[in-house]
Amino acid sequence: MSDKKKPIQPVSGTIVPRYAGPSTFARLPELRDVEECDVAIVGVPFDAGTSYRPGARFGPQSVRQASRQLRTNYHPNYDVEPFKVQQVADAGDIACNPFDIDEAIKQIEKGSIELLQKVGSIVTIGGDHTIALPLLRSINKKVGGPVALVHFDAHLDTWDTYFGAPYTHGTPFRRAREEKLFLDDASMHIGIRGPLYSTNDLKNDRELGFKTIHCDEFQTNTIDQIVKRIKDRIGNNPLYISIDIDVLDPAHAPGTGTPEVAGMTTREILNVLRGLAGSQLVSADVVEVAPAYDHAELTSTAAATIVYELINIIARNPK
Amino acid sequence: MSDKKKPIQPVSGTIVPRYAGPSTFARLPELRDVEECDVAIVGVPFDAGTSYRPGARFGPQSVRQASRQLRTNYHPNYDVEPFKVQQVADAGDIACNPFDIDEAIKQIEKGSIELLQKVGSIVTIGGDHTIALPLLRSINKKVGGPVALVHFDAHLDTWDTYFGAPYTHGTPFRRAREEKLFLDDASMHIGIRGPLYSTNDLKNDRELGFKTIHCDEFQTNTIDQIVKRIKDRIGNNPLYISIDIDVLDPAHAPGTGTPEVAGMTTREILNVLRGLAGSQLVSADVVEVAPAYDHAELTSTAAATIVYELINIIARNPK
Amino acid sequence: MSDKKKPIQPVSGTIVPRYAGPSTFARLPELRDVEECDVAIVGVPFDAGTSYRPGARFGPQSVRQASRQLRTNYHPNYDVEPFKVQQVADAGDIACNPFDIDEAIKQIEKGSIELLQKVGSIVTIGGDHTIALPLLRSINKKVGGPVALVHFDAHLDTWDTYFGAPYTHGTPFRRAREEKLFLDDASMHIGIRGPLYSTNDLKNDRELGFKTIHCDEFQTNTIDQIVKRIKDRIGNNPLYISIDIDVLDPAHAPGTGTPEVAGMTTREILNVLRGLAGSQLVSADVVEVAPAYDHAELTSTAAATIVYELINIIARNPK
Amino acid sequence: MSDKKKPIQPVSGTIVPRYAGPSTFARLPELRDVEECDVAIVGVPFDAGTSYRPGARFGPQSVRQASRQLRTNYHPNYDVEPFKVQQVADAGDIACNPFDIDEAIKQIEKGSIELLQKVGSIVTIGGDHTIALPLLRSINKKVGGPVALVHFDAHLDTWDTYFGAPYTHGTPFRRAREEKLFLDDASMHIGIRGPLYSTNDLKNDRELGFKTIHCDEFQTNTIDQIVKRIKDRIGNNPLYISIDIDVLDPAHAPGTGTPEVAGMTTREILNVLRGLAGSQLVSADVVEVAPAYDHAELTSTAAATIVYELINIIARNPK
Amino acid sequence: MSDKKKPIQPVSGTIVPRYAGPSTFARLPELRDVEECDVAIVGVPFDAGTSYRPGARFGPQSVRQASRQLRTNYHPNYDVEPFKVQQVADAGDIACNPFDIDEAIKQIEKGSIELLQKVGSIVTIGGDHTIALPLLRSINKKVGGPVALVHFDAHLDTWDTYFGAPYTHGTPFRRAREEKLFLDDASMHIGIRGPLYSTNDLKNDRELGFKTIHCDEFQTNTIDQIVKRIKDRIGNNPLYISIDIDVLDPAHAPGTGTPEVAGMTTREILNVLRGLAGSQLVSADVVEVAPAYDHAELTSTAAATIVYELINIIARNPK
Amino acid sequence: MSDKKKPIQPVSGTIVPRYAGPSTFARLPELRDVEECDVAIVGVPFDAGTSYRPGARFGPQSVRQASRQLRTNYHPNYDVEPFKVQQVADAGDIACNPFDIDEAIKQIEKGSIELLQKVGSIVTIGGDHTIALPLLRSINKKVGGPVALVHFDAHLDTWDTYFGAPYTHGTPFRRAREEKLFLDDASMHIGIRGPLYSTNDLKNDRELGFKTIHCDEFQTNTIDQIVKRIKDRIGNNPLYISIDIDVLDPAHAPGTGTPEVAGMTTREILNVLRGLAGSQLVSADVVEVAPAYDHAELTSTAAATIVYELINIIARNPK
Repeated sequence: MSDKKKPIQPVSGTIVPRYAGPSTFARLPELRDVEECDVAIVGVPFDAGTSYRPGARFGPQSVRQASRQLRTNYHPNYDVEPFKVQQVADAGDIACNPFDIDEAIKQIEKGSIELLQKVGSIVTIGGDHTIALPLLRSINKKVGGPVALVHFDAHLDTWDTYFGAPYTHGTPFRRAREEKLFLDDASMHIGIRGPLYSTNDLKNDRELGFKTIHCDEFQTNTIDQIVKRIKDRIGNNPLYISIDIDVLDPAHAPGTGTPEVAGMTTREILNVLRGLAGSQLVSADVVEVAPAYDHAELTSTAAATIVYELINIIARNPK
Repeated sequence: MSDKKKPIQPVSGTIVPRYAGPSTFARLPELRDVEECDVAIVGVPFDAGTSYRPGARFGPQSVRQASRQLRTNYHPNYDVEPFKVQQVADAGDIACNPFDIDEAIKQIEKGSIELLQKVGSIVTIGGDHTIALPLLRSINKKVGGPVALVHFDAHLDTWDTYFGAPYTHGTPFRRAREEKLFLDDASMHIGIRGPLYSTNDLKNDRELGFKTIHCDEFQTNTIDQIVKRIKDRIGNNPLYISIDIDVLDPAHAPGTGTPEVAGMTTREILNVLRGLAGSQLVSADVVEVAPAYDHAELTSTAAATIVYELINIIARNPK
Repeated sequence: MSDKKKPIQPVSGTIVPRYAGPSTFARLPELRDVEECDVAIVGVPFDAGTSYRPGARFGPQSVRQASRQLRTNYHPNYDVEPFKVQQVADAGDIACNPFDIDEAIKQIEKGSIELLQKVGSIVTIGGDHTIALPLLRSINKKVGGPVALVHFDAHLDTWDTYFGAPYTHGTPFRRAREEKLFLDDASMHIGIRGPLYSTNDLKNDRELGFKTIHCDEFQTNTIDQIVKRIKDRIGNNPLYISIDIDVLDPAHAPGTGTPEVAGMTTREILNVLRGLAGSQLVSADVVEVAPAYDHAELTSTAAATIVYELINIIARNPK
Repeated sequence: MSDKKKPIQPVSGTIVPRYAGPSTFARLPELRDVEECDVAIVGVPFDAGTSYRPGARFGPQSVRQASRQLRTNYHPNYDVEPFKVQQVADAGDIACNPFDIDEAIKQIEKGSIELLQKVGSIVTIGGDHTIALPLLRSINKKVGGPVALVHFDAHLDTWDTYFGAPYTHGTPFRRAREEKLFLDDASMHIGIRGPLYSTNDLKNDRELGFKTIHCDEFQTNTIDQIVKRIKDRIGNNPLYISIDIDVLDPAHAPGTGTPEVAGMTTREILNVLRGLAGSQLVSADVVEVAPAYDHAELTSTAAATIVYELINIIARNPK
Repeated sequence: MSDKKKPIQPVSGTIVPRYAGPSTFARLPELRDVEECDVAIVGVPFDAGTSYRPGARFGPQSVRQASRQLRTNYHPNYDVEPFKVQQVADAGDIACNPFDIDEAIKQIEKGSIELLQKVGSIVTIGGDHTIALPLLRSINKKVGGPVALVHFDAHLDTWDTYFGAPYTHGTPFRRAREEKLFLDDASMHIGIRGPLYSTNDLKNDRELGFKTIHCDEFQTNTIDQIVKRIKDRIGNNPLYISIDIDVLDPAHAPGTGTPEVAGMTTREILNVLRGLAGSQLVSADVVEVAPAYDHAELTSTAAATIVYELINIIARNPK
Repeated sequence: MSDKKKPIQPVSGTIVPRYAGPSTFARLPELRDVEECDVAIVGVPFDAGTSYRPGARFGPQSVRQASRQLRTNYHPNYDVEPFKVQQVADAGDIACNPFDIDEAIKQIEKGSIELLQKVGSIVTIGGDHTIALPLLRSINKKVGGPVALVHFDAHLDTWDTYFGAPYTHGTPFRRAREEKLFLDDASMHIGIRGPLYSTNDLKNDRELGFKTIHCDEFQTNTIDQIVKRIKDRIGNNPLYISIDIDVLDPAHAPGTGTPEVAGMTTREILNVLRGLAGSQLVSADVVEVAPAYDHAELTSTAAATIVYELINIIARNPK
């Protein structure tokens, strides 16, 4: 951002209690309230691509609500004041059609392109994983080509079609590969686990250009080892991170559409993300928070914290 | 049914505890297990037409689970043994596409037509209210023309389109009227309440052929008075009853997609239904049970009981 | 109680906040802390007689917890200070065998007889309805013969056996009748509703000496009319009231084992109970609170309030 | 409002799905977005005056969240388009000190006075009932003297002190009376029920100038009769309505701090409010929504609907 | 199974959405639908042996419901298609008396013996741990002698009696030892933790022939080390695995009767089970799922996944 | 304790089922029932110092309720029978003013001093963390000077003021340091994590005399290493342990006021505590259990178990 302006800060928790005040993410200013914006938080409340438990349409508002509680001034793990070194703002929601997946994808693509014309990076709160496809399209447009993709998820999300539908929450990365939206030599799944629909799933997936860090590997590898494998894979490429909250164990994130046991802890994912500081993170999404299945804001709080970590990574991006 | 056969009964609660045994509605036989069938219970787990809280796709299984607890041998209000005078069976679910409303509607229509070729009547468990349209089409085909329609709901469900979509859970009865699927001089809304999208809503609705018993009228009318108004309206026409569970007050049915306060009690709806004994009920549906928002099976138990009452009305149909 | 003593009062809410202090019912003194006791509250945490949802074993503690919130000094409907005109105390729980119904019944009978030797009346918190049988035995012993029985319940609880078991929560009043524990010309069911196991249920029940006020009658009768029918039936006989919390609608009491829709409201039951002031209430029970299915202490608060109303009726007993 | 301007409308549910878009009440414009404002919705997230279950600090955000679902264009009971005949906007929250009741009361008074200088009326979402005192002070200042007060509540809230504290959620109306903030010949409690702390409670209360419609009277009176008694009492005086959500039965409003069984239904309160159309409603509050104890947004939806009804009454105010 | 037949597969999730279709485990065929059966899933809904929180009687149906979501075609950890190499089917529930533990045990023994005459192996879903005793008897009969027993549990379940009852959920393995149902030199507890009833508990337990892997050892040992200890202990003996779901930490399995903190994660137990591939698993049970205490199907999903893992182990059994 | 007396034991779970009997912690005797007391469990139900989610006022009763389930006779990790080698009793609650933090702090200080005159040690159940200050004052008085302080928490709790309030749940340890209540060369935070309010937070904290074991270090250090660092730090000084339950991950302790993801597991904290056996633990507290946000007693059970572990440490104190 221009060095003349001091970023507008979130409402302070010492003046307005955290349970009061604006409903923006972390009580940040709205996008319309800032002159320039480095990072925008945007909601995409869409879940018509869900195959099992729906409800991620309520994800953005619940993650914003949980984000009230974040203490955000200074992050010691990144040694940065993420809202001081860059202007962060809440861009509201991209409205999209709940009854027509194709139209919704167009609306998300259009909305995110328009937003990326105004801001440097976006961190999107889903919605189901269908939305990753139009978001990747917009990011490619912004960056001028494909990105390294790091995909945290219990599931591969690289099926071909589901009930004949090419665009659902189980297929975005196959479509993205077909459209060459990510670098096939610099992308990764992290946290994959569980049985598969077919013996071909993993093979197909490898052919799409992914390497995988299986969730079980967190049982035998240190975080440092895992971080190194990710960094080696992504290199210096511009990076997009897509996080399906079901990469977390259901104990840590019950409020999601297709929970899968034996997942990551929040401590593991935060430490992996912190290891990625220094990468060139161009944008990111956090998807599949379904609040109707949440309890005590467990899942929303995890997602809000992850969004905040992503903002910190961007704050530490190399210039 | 042929008088040679004795109907196969539900599994007895004195032999197999109610929490055990088959997961069919009321632990009835499956359709494939009976030679002839008078009334089939069928699930339509579809909720892609939902505008607010999704989750009615889990309605059929949750209503079946709650129906385990029903004591079903003899209903004193109808003075009938509904599973002795007719064969009732569970026909399972009609599978339909979660990602394509148009295809799903075709699947529901096809599935229910095929079912009605095998059985006398169906009582359908939704799913969202979108499904009422293909069900009415099938019933028209079965009956050979339009039916009297009694529609219990907090909302009119006669909007034109929503987000450009003609087929959603807010529009089935406008489409049905356009297709002349119900008798415009013998149909009724019951339980309507709350503010409206437009001053034209009620006017438009009347032009579609509905009369309305507003929910507030239960505060000033006796059940007998209300029953009389309904019976006068429907006459001797073949009758279809469509019950959106949100006609009940949220205190009685929290687990639904668009709850509206100031609704009916379960005692009121059961007494109204019992008043309709002697009508010619050809089929019925109970929709919009969204278990993710339910508590202690409140909503599912209400819906299961209502399904059972409908079976009793059919058992008392004039020959 | 002897007129020399002033009753020991519950802990005052103006000195110790209601969420603090002793866990006795309404923060009353323990039985061991008073010299004489007119009314004892006693828990019977037993649920091995449950046919569907178990968990009433946690009823006594949850009702006591909910009772913390009761404001109890003066009851304007009875115009009495129920803890000033009589000594009320909490007698703790009667421990009983969770694995052997027969032994548990003996323990409950023994425990309640011993308690009734020390106190004037007991109000028992269940536990499932199985416990009404040994309690009636003890009351008969105390009173010297059968009592008028007013039974609030969704279900008759007069089956013969269930899985061959003569003592379960569905059979206590058939056993009680066989043992002539209540007056067959002065007893009543109130709130009965729903379908039945057999066409004989109601007939059998009448032969056992019950009259019934069906729950639907609350839709057409005033409370005064219903109270009058009850009072006419019970006359001046010593009265035992047994209240299955499922007499309430599940909206008012979700936390119970066999919920039945179309039930009474809490406003209806409280007004009926208040109408019974002036009867000779010798003891009472409130059963079938299953907290695992409760929400926000709805059911426990209803039960605690009902226990408190019963204490007020006893306070107003004719001398 | 000036007749030159057309009021800015809430975001339309046919363009932006109701689960998306701004988090203001009913997705209304923010106060800063309108030039003139007739009615402002304002949150007062304060609960340090709570004696039992805390958590009403989360009331404003949860009521706003539930208000997303309201269909608001036209209210047939009032025959008015409440957002067309007046400008309504969301004024956000009045921040107040969670640790110091006295300072918080000053902040609420100051904040509401400032707000009332800008807008015609306010409808406040609490917070606990402590806030009614500073709100009444501000209204008196706005109106230029005391108002008729209609107070819906299970409890009198006219105690003197509690733990020595003069300002808590149990005392606002005694303080208000001492400060002569309401007309002692035109004020009323509605929905009072339950036992009392002392035999003097009702007597004291009458001396403060209240008449009471006991909740049990809804069992024996028609809504019309009750409305008439209220209207006769308030006359043509400027009216302030204060609604403690616990006036509703816990079945209808479990999410509150001191639930009391045997309460009003939502159908009853809405019908009473609708009867008050034509009064001169100057401002109002809805308090004591404690979302941690709510389920499926039952309580928040009831409160949001009541806020909307109050807006309609103001829309119908005589000029 | 005979190599002529191709196993009947579960209903495909690409034809019938997972929330629809049959309620059998993983939507497998019913036992009556297959000619031969290698592995049967069977429910034993019995919880009268429970000492604290009851409700495991609802375990089988809730585990089946959660199993809908399993993707089951191919398990990469075992490199097997478990439903292709063997016929798996759902055998329904064994009905047993809820009021008489002794009779229930006989019914379970009889039911499982009859089932094992028809199928190769059974994986039983409880029900409380009482059922392990009759199941072990049946397995002994099938195998022709005692088996190696691997018992995952927070508790030893080797008490002598409880309230005089020899058969409860705390005693099955002491009874089993007395009946010599397992090999005292090849059996193990895994996951034991927490304080004990007596200093003798562990000593007694060792005398019964158990070795123990304490849950804390997962903090200091690798999964490989633990697997090796188990495999060394069981040798090549026919193996029975009994899994009390409370071996998991309550964060992973809240829905159980006697939760004990500091437990295993789902990732740990799945990895241990996968390490046991190659053993001769003859049958297994998963018990103590009490859905009333579950949230978002956390516990049921864990149990369903474990059942599926056990099916995979059997699929990999040495011939 | 004097060696003449045998300690009075908790009510035995083999005589009175655990869900029955007294509501004291672990069903221990009340303090008034024992002649001498080594360790008293005391509740301080106070939460007016809470900045986000309130409700810890219900902590003591919910922890006591969860403690019913503890098996307590013998703890193998400590090899001690903690209720045999010392008399432990429940001292009830210290009543304190919910509306006045200053008065409440005085009441807690006075109450705990009086209690410590009667008993050797106290283990306090909160209540919010505000209470640690008056408790430390009392302990200093008892011990005759400052103590080593081991503070388990997600947060530093060493802010200066919050909304001008010097005494809140975020400030106790700054006040304690100012009053020199703990040894600045022997105190530690454990489990700290998450972003901070300011870059100065950690620096200020170090100046107050704390060293910190960050929660992430549990990812890279063994429990033994961590225990050694703690023991080295505290030396042989008298030790006070203050445990904010939010030191646990929200998956393990959802029911708290300011949850912070990426926390400790219950297995980790229990193993650390067990490592501290042999220290000179003079007293301890467990705070911030907010049951309204708990599920299935997860948090209360964790807290109850931790209280029990602390009793075991005291039982193993060097003489």
